[in-house]
Amino acid sequence: MTSAATEGRPSGSEAVTDRDDTVELLGLVAHLQHVAFGRLADDAREAPTTAEQLELSRLAAAAVQRRDRVLARVAELGGDPERSLGAYTRLLEDFDNRTQPSTWWERLLRSYVAEGVSDDFCRIAAGAVDDVTRELLLEVLDDAAHAELAVAALESAGAQDEVLVSRLALWGRRLVGEALGVVQQAMAAHPSLARLVGNREGAPEASTEPAPAGDPKLFGELTAEHTRRMSRLGLTA
Amino acid sequence: MTSAATEGRPSGSEAVTDRDDTVELLGLVAHLQHVAFGRLADDAREAPTTAEQLELSRLAAAAVQRRDRVLARVAELGGDPERSLGAYTRLLEDFDNRTQPSTWWERLLRSYVAEGVSDDFCRIAAGAVDDVTRELLLEVLDDAAHAELAVAALESAGAQDEVLVSRLALWGRRLVGEALGVVQQAMAAHPSLARLVGNREGAPEASTEPAPAGDPKLFGELTAEHTRRMSRLGLTA
Repeated sequence: MTSAATEGRPSGSEAVTDRDDTVELLGLVAHLQHVAFGRLADDAREAPTTAEQLELSRLAAAAVQRRDRVLARVAELGGDPERSLGAYTRLLEDFDNRTQPSTWWERLLRSYVAEGVSDDFCRIAAGAVDDVTRELLLEVLDDAAHAELAVAALESAGAQDEVLVSRLALWGRRLVGEALGVVQQAMAAHPSLARLVGNREGAPEASTEPAPAGDPKLFGELTAEHTRRMSRLGLTA
Repeated sequence: MTSAATEGRPSGSEAVTDRDDTVELLGLVAHLQHVAFGRLADDAREAPTTAEQLELSRLAAAAVQRRDRVLARVAELGGDPERSLGAYTRLLEDFDNRTQPSTWWERLLRSYVAEGVSDDFCRIAAGAVDDVTRELLLEVLDDAAHAELAVAALESAGAQDEVLVSRLALWGRRLVGEALGVVQQAMAAHPSLARLVGNREGAPEASTEPAPAGDPKLFGELTAEHTRRMSRLGLTA
């Protein structure tokens, strides 16, 4: 498990990605899908209409399926699915505690921002893993059904309420600050992730050294994507 | 929608089941699956091990799929899926409030008893609907994966702890009393359900009149099945 895998060599790059690092990223993505499941299940309960309850519960079920596809890849690579998932159990605890939403809109925006940032981070790190894994991860991460729902709901709410729009813009700025903090903590706690980010295609310099936790290029990319997402909602990032 | 449907004629019985009554039963089963989804999602969060968390979240996802199959049948019969589901929104509120579990075991047993009774009731009522609907309902209701999990967990816990066994036996008696109360309320609030139970094959006398809410044969059947289920756990009903 600690030997560099031939399959772990990213196309178009000289950097060699350790299979353990790949499993660690898979564990993160699986954990995020598992968390998304729990949150969507809560959202389904809280949703104001039966139609939204149905839709959100379907998204929760889809998150379970995506998580299991990712865990199946962990097993294929010789990793332990439960352990790879379990390594991230407390990752979002602080984030959740510090960003308790007080309304349905704040709750929707929290998911939208948190998933946006975490998915972007995983997509970037996926640039350093083997082709099969990368393809799987990009497919799982691109399933943006929940984002579409959030965009539609938030847009239609915002269209009628300027006060809401400016409140949500403020909330969004707080959320992204907290979310970027989580990325930084995750990279500090999981050197594998930092190595993958450092090894990604297009990274400043391919290296087996972890990217510094403050990697300005990474955080620039994450922030730019967040700004783009907020503007889709008509919110200033 | 109020005319008796030819498809609504149960095989081997002279009773004619109204399509609206069938839709009302489908709505109940869909609601129960929707509730099961929410509860399993909560269980997944509370479960002590990662393995159980994974398993319970998979069961939650499966409940969503079963619910959607039932709702698809509502649409096929010309009913409104959302409305049929929404008719039962408050059905289990009292039950849930009056049976707050204080331990993981009490929680598992609550699901086991509540699902057992409600599934039995729906199975009995399904005896009065058209063949296609009945087949679908029996398939959905027979998916006993969650019960197996509860049985395994409760058995292994009880094997080591006599005090727990006698506490759970007591808890089970309280649960079944509350669950039978819900059945009675549901039949009072939804005359369709009482009619279906009265029209089922093997019912004392096929009739278009609702079965009396106190239907002793029905409650005898439900209690007998409950007793059988409790004894599988080594618990005295």
